[in-house]
Amino acid sequence: MASNFTLNQQLAEDCIVLGSLGSSLLLLLNNSLVPWFILVPQTEACEIHDMPDNERLQLFDEMMELARFVDNEFKPDKVNTGAIGNIVRQLHVHVIARYEDDFCWPQVVWGRPEKKLYSTKEIDRIMTRLSTRLKQRFVPVTAE
Amino acid sequence: MASNFTLNQQLAEDCIVLGSLGSSLLLLLNNSLVPWFILVPQTEACEIHDMPDNERLQLFDEMMELARFVDNEFKPDKVNTGAIGNIVRQLHVHVIARYEDDFCWPQVVWGRPEKKLYSTKEIDRIMTRLSTRLKQRFVPVTAE
Repeated sequence: MASNFTLNQQLAEDCIVLGSLGSSLLLLLNNSLVPWFILVPQTEACEIHDMPDNERLQLFDEMMELARFVDNEFKPDKVNTGAIGNIVRQLHVHVIARYEDDFCWPQVVWGRPEKKLYSTKEIDRIMTRLSTRLKQRFVPVTAE
Repeated sequence: MASNFTLNQQLAEDCIVLGSLGSSLLLLLNNSLVPWFILVPQTEACEIHDMPDNERLQLFDEMMELARFVDNEFKPDKVNTGAIGNIVRQLHVHVIARYEDDFCWPQVVWGRPEKKLYSTKEIDRIMTRLSTRLKQRFVPVTAE
């Protein structure tokens, strides 16, 4: 990560920082009701279309890599992706595994109050899957 | 449009077909509460990450062109984009102009019951703006 990169406070509170995927930060929303990942590119832009071309292409690449990982590893019925940013303006992209029997199918997950925190064991398991499957691009956070 | 391309029935009922943007169909959700556009690429895939590379890059290009148009023409406080597809499986991408004083800010618009149909005049005005600003890529539907 660039040394001047600061993660938005709200994202930091709601999520677990897993590491980096390419040049984006990779977060896991701390809500185990559905596998819900968030990519935070290192950019000043608040909209994907305002990013410089090279940064945007890199982000699309990372989004697709993450979406394929989510699809292959979690076998959802549908992957939901979105860039909303009405509450948190720091640009971030959601990649979510959805199931026909999940807590709010077929409605979208954004804005729902239901929540179930992850156990350390569950987070470790996701870290292992990321490290195994995306070893070329994923760099896990290290304890300091 | 390819002759074998068929628009999903639900999308056809809920939206106005404006024309084509690049190789995607461009729709306007018939709900004037917020400017809400939908791109439908001509693909067999239900997920963006499953599209062939050339189709996907083309879609990203069209999404960015549409997002810039929405941003420049409607001056929203935030553009919301998403590919959900829990209800309609035909791949489609939402590009929505959001305002801090719109009907459900800062919540997402998906799944909300509020609705206000467009007048013919309002639709004509949007068509004119598209034709003027995206004349290189936008091809309006023609009355048959």
